[in-house]
Amino acid sequence: MFEAKIDASVLRECIESITAVVDEGKLRVAEDGLKLRAVDPANVAMVSFELQRDAFDDFRFEQGSGAEAASESTAATTEVGIDFNKLRDILGIGGREEVDLKLDEQVQKLFTRMGSLAYTISLLDPASLRKEPKVPELEFPVQVVIETEEFRRTIRASEKIGDHIVLGVDGEEFYMEVEGEMDKLRLGLRKEQLIHLTPGTLHSLYSLDYVAAMSKGMSHAENITLNLGKDYPLRVDFEVADGKGKVSYLLAPRIESE
Amino acid sequence: MFEAKIDASVLRECIESITAVVDEGKLRVAEDGLKLRAVDPANVAMVSFELQRDAFDDFRFEQGSGAEAASESTAATTEVGIDFNKLRDILGIGGREEVDLKLDEQVQKLFTRMGSLAYTISLLDPASLRKEPKVPELEFPVQVVIETEEFRRTIRASEKIGDHIVLGVDGEEFYMEVEGEMDKLRLGLRKEQLIHLTPGTLHSLYSLDYVAAMSKGMSHAENITLNLGKDYPLRVDFEVADGKGKVSYLLAPRIESE
Amino acid sequence: MFEAKIDASVLRECIESITAVVDEGKLRVAEDGLKLRAVDPANVAMVSFELQRDAFDDFRFEQGSGAEAASESTAATTEVGIDFNKLRDILGIGGREEVDLKLDEQVQKLFTRMGSLAYTISLLDPASLRKEPKVPELEFPVQVVIETEEFRRTIRASEKIGDHIVLGVDGEEFYMEVEGEMDKLRLGLRKEQLIHLTPGTLHSLYSLDYVAAMSKGMSHAENITLNLGKDYPLRVDFEVADGKGKVSYLLAPRIESE
Repeated sequence: MFEAKIDASVLRECIESITAVVDEGKLRVAEDGLKLRAVDPANVAMVSFELQRDAFDDFRFEQGSGAEAASESTAATTEVGIDFNKLRDILGIGGREEVDLKLDEQVQKLFTRMGSLAYTISLLDPASLRKEPKVPELEFPVQVVIETEEFRRTIRASEKIGDHIVLGVDGEEFYMEVEGEMDKLRLGLRKEQLIHLTPGTLHSLYSLDYVAAMSKGMSHAENITLNLGKDYPLRVDFEVADGKGKVSYLLAPRIESE
Repeated sequence: MFEAKIDASVLRECIESITAVVDEGKLRVAEDGLKLRAVDPANVAMVSFELQRDAFDDFRFEQGSGAEAASESTAATTEVGIDFNKLRDILGIGGREEVDLKLDEQVQKLFTRMGSLAYTISLLDPASLRKEPKVPELEFPVQVVIETEEFRRTIRASEKIGDHIVLGVDGEEFYMEVEGEMDKLRLGLRKEQLIHLTPGTLHSLYSLDYVAAMSKGMSHAENITLNLGKDYPLRVDFEVADGKGKVSYLLAPRIESE
Repeated sequence: MFEAKIDASVLRECIESITAVVDEGKLRVAEDGLKLRAVDPANVAMVSFELQRDAFDDFRFEQGSGAEAASESTAATTEVGIDFNKLRDILGIGGREEVDLKLDEQVQKLFTRMGSLAYTISLLDPASLRKEPKVPELEFPVQVVIETEEFRRTIRASEKIGDHIVLGVDGEEFYMEVEGEMDKLRLGLRKEQLIHLTPGTLHSLYSLDYVAAMSKGMSHAENITLNLGKDYPLRVDFEVADGKGKVSYLLAPRIESE
């Protein structure tokens, strides 16, 4: 049994951070909130999402269909397959109201209600969804904390230039660099222009399509943390729901061809 | 002879209520104002339109080309074929000015003038247009008066879900319901959430494409009246031109297949 | 050696006045500012562009790569091939900052910098570009000075009607006229509705596509001067960069077929 109440725009912000990487996935509902981990169809990008129960105005969860299951509910989790695009589209209608959520596992439906508007979505069969990925063990030598808008603006400009983007650190400077056939774009920010920077010398190359998609999912966050290595995956961390939710994107690097 | 002067944005609102259903039609000009009745090419939807002469800042009409025709002008009407899409496009340019209309039946043209901009449109040959439809005799057991924006918002959400929409009344509740393959949307409004409701138990199914087109034509009206029956046509009534014009849409029901 | 600093939005306005006619061209840099003259691929339209050095916040120019060339810099000019569309796209990102320009002829690149964002564009080989056109010797019997927005609005309306537009003067009235198959649009402005008018009786026909493209390039200017003749080219003059730049469009007339 899962029933909850949350600001519709907060939920939408959360769902948009997920749809930046995947259309659908297995949402895990537990007593302490919601969690999701999913990879994109090409296996290049991963999203990890967590939303604490106190992001909700009301949150009730009991596991299983019977009383005996509920008694062991501490570590219990319910897994539901959700089409996030559909949920997002509906949350966009009708503005800033509160939304009621109610999960019915018997009929495999998620009931949502915004004021007088009720929207029922069939759950996806978890067996039909990609397996929840393991998060690889990674160590990132460098962290960069940057204003989201600065990052996004550079990504928008980059899309006009090329297909791949270099993210790197050179001493006390963080840079983003895109090369096209005829032209080249480079953002360079010194330590004092950033919120945080671990000095170092390293860079990696990423597919710009993926970074651009991710940059849409982070639009509500004020700052993002870029975790970087040398020819290494990128992990972008940011908060949603006024700090009561966390999102991480993981993106595989591209091998630079000379 | 027909010459008139009207606020361009008022005329545009009127024309848009017509183009929501038909591109062209026979406008009947008479001493008491303008009238139109037309069906869409598929014969599924009808629009009835009336604009009183006092919606105009100036309105002069005399029938026929000679003096003798004018003497019997009381019941007289002139019928002109108009391409409403073209007229609407031009009225959208140049903002909120006044527009002068002048009909020249000799050369079969409608002259419009907005400030320094003159736009001349050739009349369509009435013989080339679909016959003006008869309004079927209908009795609607139920009337629902609803805020236009609430109705339109629900239609926009519905378009993301399915192709058909149910409009119905269940006791003291009015509802709109769309079912997709996987999900379902339902707006339920109790009597006190509406401006008016005739209680009852009935519903009909309609093609969402048509309802969505109509919902664009009513965007300037504050409220609309939905006239409903059981597996019956829908009639939507609303006012234009600050109450000096009336529009009715009639839409054939779809047969529900189980 | 060319290095300069200019408001990014001013530079963008200038570049947009060029891209209304051509995508690329040879920009001539000299001690007194920038100049360009280019024809469109179909040889129908020409743009002449001039930007004074005092439109820049900083402007430094020395000709040639060595000291001896610099000594004769008075009449000296450097010609660089630029892809104006690319430059415009980048200037659109990041808002109203200042942009630093630096030309490196050795490596044939133009370096631009807006805050922390550096954009390097390869120069086009001037040999690959169309030759700079000669400006034909023309005498225009009539000048009309009109508010840009009035002109642009009429062009937008005209595009809904037809493919060609007549610009003409009839006594003390300036007019723009487009005829479609079924309808006709005409703007008529008397001398007192214009900023200036040379009375006369003449008109010419132009391709609306070209005039519409040009009308986009003049959107920042308050007024434009139309130079007209009888079945003659059109020259449109206007200012950019707060009067510190000048743009002229020249457009060949269409021959009227009866």
